[in-house]
Amino acid sequence: MSAVSLDQLNAADKAQFVAALGAIYEHSPWVAEAVAAKRPFATLAALHEAMMEAVRSADEAAKRKLLKAHPDLAGKAARAGAITADSRGEQASAGLDRLNETEFETLHRLNQAYARKFGFPFIICVRRHGKDSIFRQFETRLVSDVARESKTAMLEIFRIAALRLDQHVEAPDKLKVHGRLSTHVLDTHGGHPAQGVGVELHELSASGAGRLVTAAVTNADGRTDAPLIGGRPLPIGSYELRFSVGDYFARAAIALADPPFLDVVPLRFSIAEPEGHYHVPLIVTPWSYATYRGS
Amino acid sequence: MSAVSLDQLNAADKAQFVAALGAIYEHSPWVAEAVAAKRPFATLAALHEAMMEAVRSADEAAKRKLLKAHPDLAGKAARAGAITADSRGEQASAGLDRLNETEFETLHRLNQAYARKFGFPFIICVRRHGKDSIFRQFETRLVSDVARESKTAMLEIFRIAALRLDQHVEAPDKLKVHGRLSTHVLDTHGGHPAQGVGVELHELSASGAGRLVTAAVTNADGRTDAPLIGGRPLPIGSYELRFSVGDYFARAAIALADPPFLDVVPLRFSIAEPEGHYHVPLIVTPWSYATYRGS
Amino acid sequence: MSAVSLDQLNAADKAQFVAALGAIYEHSPWVAEAVAAKRPFATLAALHEAMMEAVRSADEAAKRKLLKAHPDLAGKAARAGAITADSRGEQASAGLDRLNETEFETLHRLNQAYARKFGFPFIICVRRHGKDSIFRQFETRLVSDVARESKTAMLEIFRIAALRLDQHVEAPDKLKVHGRLSTHVLDTHGGHPAQGVGVELHELSASGAGRLVTAAVTNADGRTDAPLIGGRPLPIGSYELRFSVGDYFARAAIALADPPFLDVVPLRFSIAEPEGHYHVPLIVTPWSYATYRGS
Amino acid sequence: MSAVSLDQLNAADKAQFVAALGAIYEHSPWVAEAVAAKRPFATLAALHEAMMEAVRSADEAAKRKLLKAHPDLAGKAARAGAITADSRGEQASAGLDRLNETEFETLHRLNQAYARKFGFPFIICVRRHGKDSIFRQFETRLVSDVARESKTAMLEIFRIAALRLDQHVEAPDKLKVHGRLSTHVLDTHGGHPAQGVGVELHELSASGAGRLVTAAVTNADGRTDAPLIGGRPLPIGSYELRFSVGDYFARAAIALADPPFLDVVPLRFSIAEPEGHYHVPLIVTPWSYATYRGS
Repeated sequence: MSAVSLDQLNAADKAQFVAALGAIYEHSPWVAEAVAAKRPFATLAALHEAMMEAVRSADEAAKRKLLKAHPDLAGKAARAGAITADSRGEQASAGLDRLNETEFETLHRLNQAYARKFGFPFIICVRRHGKDSIFRQFETRLVSDVARESKTAMLEIFRIAALRLDQHVEAPDKLKVHGRLSTHVLDTHGGHPAQGVGVELHELSASGAGRLVTAAVTNADGRTDAPLIGGRPLPIGSYELRFSVGDYFARAAIALADPPFLDVVPLRFSIAEPEGHYHVPLIVTPWSYATYRGS
Repeated sequence: MSAVSLDQLNAADKAQFVAALGAIYEHSPWVAEAVAAKRPFATLAALHEAMMEAVRSADEAAKRKLLKAHPDLAGKAARAGAITADSRGEQASAGLDRLNETEFETLHRLNQAYARKFGFPFIICVRRHGKDSIFRQFETRLVSDVARESKTAMLEIFRIAALRLDQHVEAPDKLKVHGRLSTHVLDTHGGHPAQGVGVELHELSASGAGRLVTAAVTNADGRTDAPLIGGRPLPIGSYELRFSVGDYFARAAIALADPPFLDVVPLRFSIAEPEGHYHVPLIVTPWSYATYRGS
Repeated sequence: MSAVSLDQLNAADKAQFVAALGAIYEHSPWVAEAVAAKRPFATLAALHEAMMEAVRSADEAAKRKLLKAHPDLAGKAARAGAITADSRGEQASAGLDRLNETEFETLHRLNQAYARKFGFPFIICVRRHGKDSIFRQFETRLVSDVARESKTAMLEIFRIAALRLDQHVEAPDKLKVHGRLSTHVLDTHGGHPAQGVGVELHELSASGAGRLVTAAVTNADGRTDAPLIGGRPLPIGSYELRFSVGDYFARAAIALADPPFLDVVPLRFSIAEPEGHYHVPLIVTPWSYATYRGS
Repeated sequence: MSAVSLDQLNAADKAQFVAALGAIYEHSPWVAEAVAAKRPFATLAALHEAMMEAVRSADEAAKRKLLKAHPDLAGKAARAGAITADSRGEQASAGLDRLNETEFETLHRLNQAYARKFGFPFIICVRRHGKDSIFRQFETRLVSDVARESKTAMLEIFRIAALRLDQHVEAPDKLKVHGRLSTHVLDTHGGHPAQGVGVELHELSASGAGRLVTAAVTNADGRTDAPLIGGRPLPIGSYELRFSVGDYFARAAIALADPPFLDVVPLRFSIAEPEGHYHVPLIVTPWSYATYRGS
């Protein structure tokens, strides 16, 4: 799917409309078909709501078929490349294309146990999670019951659909599917924003090895030019920001201890709200620092 | 050497006195001999000063012999156990008995280059340094000149002697050879000291792997029962304190995010003054924290 | 009463004992008489407990007489100097000897209303309160009922007795009747305690005018040589600490704005626990500061 | 003068142009006349620069006449209302229309001494100063010399002109004559912005009595809807922000001490850069707070 505007969708004939939105729900173009006649949609939110309503009012067999249309997480189909392009991109975003053999085996075992118990695959909006969080969700949901899991799976399908709409359709309104992680560095030794501080964002993992998500240098306002994460949901997980304040204060020709009391300052925190705004600043002198969840 | 009191040393005959203090200066009982007649010493500081003065007023040949009496750092003699008990304990305290093969080879190469250039072994009061700091000192001093290095080596010998006196002689006064690293955790969500917080102190290394120095749990006053490091010099180096505040707030039944915004809080800092007092507190709520070098 | 030791009290004859402790309970030497035979007391706490028990087990008439033996707060007897020395000192400590005419009239009115309602005077351990707090307590207790007020009044009498014992009897143990207010100033611009900072403690009043309680200058450890309030209960009330940090940083020859961003820093807080320890530090740079209730 | 657009000024005939800008320089329409032929001006900055250049290149007699055209600060003319509307508004903004008799006498004495020494009145861009700052400036400049004071007075005239242009002319660009004072309140007990906190801004005075500048209540983002001061220079002076955090936490049903440790939190600071941005936040729990000069 390439991007299309809401106006184009409203003006298209039915076949074009279904072709454009047929993949919003996995292997289920019937959802797009069901809402084609309800056009025009004034907003993307209205289109999203109409498609969710079409799913909710479908009969049980159709719903069940929709659930079963989803691929296993990092399953054999994914490994073989035999899943939809959207699914492939989503699974990669959570690192599910980079599992080690143990993780792959664990996931395989969880997939089988889940399918055996519930009769449909484990469905989760992976863009809202880091790898550790997906494993945790899997273990939690595996001990749930069929009634609750059917609801949860449908909620996740709606979340996946919202993100696909957000990516593929240009519209005057925005669905609330994006979070934002930002920082700024304030130098309270000098009384001004700290410019030129190197910042790294690492995603931590229970298994030890972290992963560099992004690196930046603070600008004249002590901020990074772009959010550390933006334009997408924040993956639930544990993170560490690392600020090279030793280099910064050394460049400012401030008398420091040798080695300096503070060199690389790590701030470790977790994200729990993928659609939230996390502002995690560093208020720092060569001898002290503070942080908080700001807004 | 076992501990002896200053009073006993003052009352002992000369042979006993020299036997007790002969190892304060490496393989050089003549230093103790030189000050035996100056007894009684009112304080340990006076004894230390007299022994240093005996060394300073010795002739050049004797001084050179003293320099050469020291073993190589983590050299073959150390590996073979053929060094004094004091030297063995000192080298172990800095992790020099746990070098990997690369580090051992590097140190061997540095030892040889240093001895070739200066004509005496590299002498350093290892209890005042972590492993990384020793390597850095070695590289810095290797590019110095003979005149300056002779002075530096003698200063280090005096520092070693002071620590040996501190360990072996009980006296009413204390030499200023101890530093102190302490912490406390203040819960500003509840407005009281944080009791029961797990605290770990890790020594970091440029090569990656850290080393757990000590672990403790905060008491009713939010402090650890004993200093994290005390009764010895603080090894120059980089450290990380890790506080299990997620567990602490969860036990207090405070509503937290899932996962909690703060779980294990790391404070990373360096020690530059082995005889200094470093108080590194954590002022914390479930959503913020601050630290500083306190006193 | 002048100070006497617990040993002396244990060794004294009964008349001396009663003479020494006859004023612990207002105009009621019978309390001391009742416990004289229970000597020796190992601790001051045991003596205090015995005297309280003597009061508790007295008959209702005796208790009522004890309640009525207390003078009005800042009443005519106090103005005329016709109250016990202990009462006089206690009332002065809360500023009740410095009331303006309006306050005196209000208190007079409250005294009369209280006595009319309960049949005994309003009794409060004034050393645990500032003037505003006494007025608030008066208004709260005036709307209580006789049963509860009899208990409250007796509790206050026991608190008064504990403080009088603490002041008049030297013993190996201490009754828990003292609080402590302390501060320290940490300069996180320089990374060390702030020495030479002028500190003033003011007691605030709802009526506007504050009162300077004490002034001090921080020592080399950034603390005041003595607690700001110590050796007595902390009067419940609202306070302001004022730190002359502008002068401090100017003396340190740090480049400041003109006028400096921070000059006199006020920290305003209330004390609610007279026997508590309030540590209210100032962590400060020329551009930032923080405080908290520490311990 | 009412507001006029730069386009209108560029299109006007010369008489209209001079009428519109004749009062930018006090009683000196010749400045506007001198630049009328240089139209069109692409920006307000270009117009301002041209008018300054006209003054700078005028002969000494004209400059001296311009200096002498200014009224005394809070002088008899001001009292009698016999000064230009611009001057009247400017002097009122600094509280010079609310002087007490002592202040008025002091200013009268300073005015006379200054005029006697320099031959022209004391000229200052009063919108950039609070009352105390004006008195301090007066005393500092009174001991200067004629050469330097002539330059200083001219600089102040240019500042006054820039502010008058900013107020009277609508243009696509903005002269850098505005500062901004803002705040926000972050509740690190709850981990979110503090909504509904009452905030007062007081201007302090060396003579004691402060003056309420503005009051506001924080919105859902913990900020005030409008800057505390904006759209004008920030008057140099000492200020106190007062935050009603006791009420805020009480409404949140958080268990507090009685009285609460923190009730009204005062932040006292000075402004030294009238065109600067001062962000003075409060990071607060019921037991701690922090502030800093942010950006």
